[in-house]
Amino acid sequence: MSKLDDKFAKIGIENAPGQEKRQRTGKLDIRGERLLGTPVDFSHGDVNAHEPTPGSFDAFQKGFEKGGSQAYTEYRGARSIREDVATKIAYFTGASVDSDSEIIITPGTQCALFLAMGALVGEGDKVAIVEPDYFANRKLVEFFGGQLAPIQMDFLGTDKRSGIDLVCLEEAFKSGTRLFLFSNPNNPTGVIYSEDEIRKIASLAKKYDVALIVDELYSRQIFDNRPYFHLRAEKEKPDTLITILGPSKTESLSGFRLGVAFGSPAIIDRMERLLAIVSLRASGYNQSVLATWFSEPKGWIDHRIAAHQAIRDEILEKLRKVEGIKVRTTEGGSYLFAELPPMEVPLKDFVKIVRHLADVIITPGTEFGPQFENSFRINFSQNHEAAISGIERLLTIFERYRK
Amino acid sequence: MSKLDDKFAKIGIENAPGQEKRQRTGKLDIRGERLLGTPVDFSHGDVNAHEPTPGSFDAFQKGFEKGGSQAYTEYRGARSIREDVATKIAYFTGASVDSDSEIIITPGTQCALFLAMGALVGEGDKVAIVEPDYFANRKLVEFFGGQLAPIQMDFLGTDKRSGIDLVCLEEAFKSGTRLFLFSNPNNPTGVIYSEDEIRKIASLAKKYDVALIVDELYSRQIFDNRPYFHLRAEKEKPDTLITILGPSKTESLSGFRLGVAFGSPAIIDRMERLLAIVSLRASGYNQSVLATWFSEPKGWIDHRIAAHQAIRDEILEKLRKVEGIKVRTTEGGSYLFAELPPMEVPLKDFVKIVRHLADVIITPGTEFGPQFENSFRINFSQNHEAAISGIERLLTIFERYRK
Repeated sequence: MSKLDDKFAKIGIENAPGQEKRQRTGKLDIRGERLLGTPVDFSHGDVNAHEPTPGSFDAFQKGFEKGGSQAYTEYRGARSIREDVATKIAYFTGASVDSDSEIIITPGTQCALFLAMGALVGEGDKVAIVEPDYFANRKLVEFFGGQLAPIQMDFLGTDKRSGIDLVCLEEAFKSGTRLFLFSNPNNPTGVIYSEDEIRKIASLAKKYDVALIVDELYSRQIFDNRPYFHLRAEKEKPDTLITILGPSKTESLSGFRLGVAFGSPAIIDRMERLLAIVSLRASGYNQSVLATWFSEPKGWIDHRIAAHQAIRDEILEKLRKVEGIKVRTTEGGSYLFAELPPMEVPLKDFVKIVRHLADVIITPGTEFGPQFENSFRINFSQNHEAAISGIERLLTIFERYRK
Repeated sequence: MSKLDDKFAKIGIENAPGQEKRQRTGKLDIRGERLLGTPVDFSHGDVNAHEPTPGSFDAFQKGFEKGGSQAYTEYRGARSIREDVATKIAYFTGASVDSDSEIIITPGTQCALFLAMGALVGEGDKVAIVEPDYFANRKLVEFFGGQLAPIQMDFLGTDKRSGIDLVCLEEAFKSGTRLFLFSNPNNPTGVIYSEDEIRKIASLAKKYDVALIVDELYSRQIFDNRPYFHLRAEKEKPDTLITILGPSKTESLSGFRLGVAFGSPAIIDRMERLLAIVSLRASGYNQSVLATWFSEPKGWIDHRIAAHQAIRDEILEKLRKVEGIKVRTTEGGSYLFAELPPMEVPLKDFVKIVRHLADVIITPGTEFGPQFENSFRINFSQNHEAAISGIERLLTIFERYRK
């Protein structure tokens, strides 16, 4: 079983967001007093501060009351719900979606990603991923036996584009990469890909016959009215293209575990086969909650975006007052990725120290790429005041360890 | 990608229970008039006829109202819920369960099975499975690249034991089998393993260092007060043992997608790592519904068992009046597996014909083992009258095709 040991060693979750409760802290270099304040868990959004979409619970109840037909849907999701969602996401992304063959409802976008990767990555296949990008991407490549081809993104060097290294991407495509997976807005930086970048990625994928998975989980929460480009709406694009979207983040529906993947029918078909052995279907009653998605009350989403933009701005102001911290303004989504100047403890210890001294949970940068040893990610979808106080405490602690 | 094509070809779902809506029927040898009656979908239980556990919806609501802490649990499930469930299943199965290290809450028992198999099956590993047994078992072995070692069960040859071929099982264990997976009560036959069989399986697994996964999904619904033996309560048992249980069947909570796996901490740990990339966690709010599990109102489970026993008995009476049909009395769970005498059409066509002519859905035997070409499975957890009428229509149609 040594090959399996190796595989599971590579998909460790000790530092994964949300798992902090299970950490053994060991010996830490604790300096100074604890700082009191409301605990803040920046590893994920606070759905008490930003509540689930209005009507989501009622929609669940309707599903429950519908009974058997809602409990046992087709594996890819109830037909009527797929029809409704397909119409809405076709409008949102600017390209049609056939509800019968081109969409699957999944237990969360995490599962959409798992199924898409399972459908496309075979043993030894070369898969390009961005660094930094969502922490599970790398683990999924490892799990399915693929080979990582990391593409760097110089997100601190520009504010006009994401900064992805397109020359390196083309090199990877030329030398046998089968699949390229990326999130847009990028997780953890909150950067959006420019129109030119999206166009170039699409046309390179077409040219070299590379499959694409585009994770657009945060694409409904775009700040400062920036333009956002859905790759699937491009004229020139690869034959194999899967887009992933879900209501877990901006809509705060994560507790329902709902996501969708849409695109190439042959891949959607494989994803359904895999879902059948993974967990049959997204919880039947929960699927009904998708009725509220893209059908929120007028102004609701604008209000939510404005509230998050305000938190973002105040946190950025605090961070930028500190000598040596490097951070790019979040363009979409609720993440900020900040690089700290040198400290007298490693960042992985600092993360635990901050939790101990300030009741603040942050995610170490190494979850998003091994080279981000001085960075951390926060999800600022929090109670506004608590978030600001949490950042202040974090920065106070930081000064105790600055080199 | 041809290796992937092959892999996905092996996990086809065209005939899987619940997917009938997606079937293309093609040309069928249709004989005679359609028979009118309430449509019956014997591919799964009818949760309108046998409703979800009382209080399950309220428990969900409580979880939803709890908010963020319930939406974002540890991947293996909320600590307080694990504690409650661990106590209850330890009592039920007769052996202790440590809530911190020995149990994981999963999105349905299907996912428990997927995670356990993913944690234990590496490329080329020999895995023993029973024929017939749950249709996904074989697909899971294929998906994880294992080698199938089928063990026959002569369930029609006895009514004192399951009829598993223990000589063949020991041969398989001797010749390098790493894992043995089986369901008890058996799906699709409803047969229960005897005390001797359970003891022998446990001691053989110990002797040859074979890991065991015991799927006890239907173990709360045992008929005729028969004794049932949980392998995990045996004195002599293997080091690696995972038991799977969930409230989807007898409790009709399938629409919530909840299951648990419990056993060896190292495997539970791997399962959590895998769950983190598969779908993070079972839907947070849904987890709260487990509060109702093993805490049903007094007499509720006895009443449910009696209602199912009555349906079983009347169906068996109908089937046994028909010359040539072979069927064993269900001992636990809601499945019946019946073998038909020779027909003028293949059974896979007959299944579609019955759906067309009688509005009755049954599952072909080949889903449970390639040799069961003349058998079909029904789930008799249905409205009593509708079930009887459905069986009568099925038998009428059968006579039109008898050889």
